[in-house]
Amino acid sequence: MEKVSGDRYTINVYPCLFQIKKGYMRTYLDCIPCFFRQALDMTRITGVDEATQKKVLNEVSKLIPNFPLDASPPKMGREIYRIVKRITDINDPFKKIKQKSNKLVLDIYPRLKKEIRSSDDSFLTATELAIAGNVIDYGVKNSLDIDREIEKILAKDFAGSGNGSNHNFDYQEFRDTLNNAGSVLYLGDNTGEIVFDKLLIEELNNMFPNIKITYVVRDKPVINDALMEDAINCGLDKIVNVISSGCDAPGTILDICSKEFLNLYKNAEMVISKGQGNFETLADESRPIFFLFKVKCPVIANHTGFNLGDIVLKRM
Amino acid sequence: MEKVSGDRYTINVYPCLFQIKKGYMRTYLDCIPCFFRQALDMTRITGVDEATQKKVLNEVSKLIPNFPLDASPPKMGREIYRIVKRITDINDPFKKIKQKSNKLVLDIYPRLKKEIRSSDDSFLTATELAIAGNVIDYGVKNSLDIDREIEKILAKDFAGSGNGSNHNFDYQEFRDTLNNAGSVLYLGDNTGEIVFDKLLIEELNNMFPNIKITYVVRDKPVINDALMEDAINCGLDKIVNVISSGCDAPGTILDICSKEFLNLYKNAEMVISKGQGNFETLADESRPIFFLFKVKCPVIANHTGFNLGDIVLKRM
Repeated sequence: MEKVSGDRYTINVYPCLFQIKKGYMRTYLDCIPCFFRQALDMTRITGVDEATQKKVLNEVSKLIPNFPLDASPPKMGREIYRIVKRITDINDPFKKIKQKSNKLVLDIYPRLKKEIRSSDDSFLTATELAIAGNVIDYGVKNSLDIDREIEKILAKDFAGSGNGSNHNFDYQEFRDTLNNAGSVLYLGDNTGEIVFDKLLIEELNNMFPNIKITYVVRDKPVINDALMEDAINCGLDKIVNVISSGCDAPGTILDICSKEFLNLYKNAEMVISKGQGNFETLADESRPIFFLFKVKCPVIANHTGFNLGDIVLKRM
Repeated sequence: MEKVSGDRYTINVYPCLFQIKKGYMRTYLDCIPCFFRQALDMTRITGVDEATQKKVLNEVSKLIPNFPLDASPPKMGREIYRIVKRITDINDPFKKIKQKSNKLVLDIYPRLKKEIRSSDDSFLTATELAIAGNVIDYGVKNSLDIDREIEKILAKDFAGSGNGSNHNFDYQEFRDTLNNAGSVLYLGDNTGEIVFDKLLIEELNNMFPNIKITYVVRDKPVINDALMEDAINCGLDKIVNVISSGCDAPGTILDICSKEFLNLYKNAEMVISKGQGNFETLADESRPIFFLFKVKCPVIANHTGFNLGDIVLKRM
């Protein structure tokens, strides 16, 4: 893993934010209010009373003075989740939400499958839908929200008629790299979204039958991220090799990943990385990684130069 | 000052928030992420480097565990501002912004005056504009922003053709109370906005020449709030008696107001209170207070039952 020198973080981020188009996704000061917002949202999901919610925020406050800005935001995400678990004494607060998210998308799986198979470019449609699936977080309450996102995405010509003209969307390079790849490591993100990944992997299996694909889930419950049980529940284990990253953060922090994962990671000819959390933890890696995500926060928008709400398929 | 019993705060605020239509404006957990956002915004205004900005957030973090939720948000606003001043070693970081805000509105004063004088109901227009002026905070960069807000406000029929039919807008009661008042205490809020207050006070002087009006400013610099120097700079001292509240919070915390102010406050037959900060600190008072403000934050929207962005003229 490339070591990121500290001096690039001594800048005053506010005026310079827009100039940093690429790099390791450090924590920005703007992430700090958001950490508290996330901690509060997570805690409320558990249904504990206000006094307990306040205790969680108090514990998060205590972390701030010692949290280094050169750590990636998912490192704090991991700490916050641990605090929520400890203070509320609930091991997997998002369990029901995760099950519901999976079910929501499994229910529309036949429709999505038909959409892909009837498309002029099935692989493109499956890729677009896989990114659309990244919109599913624990705020998504019903299939209407998902339908709305799918419609929006399918209505746009992200790939620039397949010639890769859209600056957020390296579709042609994505296909070319797959054409030459023997192995692909596919880093999953959220529950629900995992069913969209399944659809893309089915197309990958069709188009590139010789590629050995490994799908990666988080090791332990963290927010609404997909685990091995979700992969099995959604049938991914039937079509692809599924492993855990060994990491219990909402991202892929290489320092705490398992040896098994790191071995595959080092040797994979191509990595497909879903979601902001994986991007934040791997953005600076020199491996051939294609990041597929929706830009959901202004800090990532500023860091990458993409716009808030953009759909991204990008080799960084 | 009415003592607020603690038991009403033991509720789980999240589901109950919408049920609290009136009451003392306590701090909600949703205010905590916002405290950090405000601290960051304030610190950035000073132009200090990122490491110093982080120091401010660290100091705010240290306050959170001991900050009681039954305090009003401006109590924390006061502490945050003190931290910013202490860490950045700048006594009045908003001085230039405040001067600019005053100038922006003084420049359009003749146009606003004409708008009021040519209106069918000059007093109504002056009242609406005074609330429109509450939109000016330190995010307002140019007169275009102000013009946009003025246009929006003047285009609407807030007062329901003068019969007070709009539930956010107790215009008839406002006029009736003024008709019977011998003294009015007018609590100012922001710089820039103070020029809109001047226009309303000029109309008040015209319509109710026998009312003794006292205009109140903050005692010491706090964010972009209006001080005695702003009142003088904008010529309010020429048309009305101006005093300081003795309070250095972005609101009117009675516990720390001066005796002179408290004496006037107790004896004033009517209070006109501008802005969210004064509302947050006085919402539970049993005195006849008319609150004039724009609902700028979702917590106040939930607390009051108004919608975000609503223009409010309300006797609570």
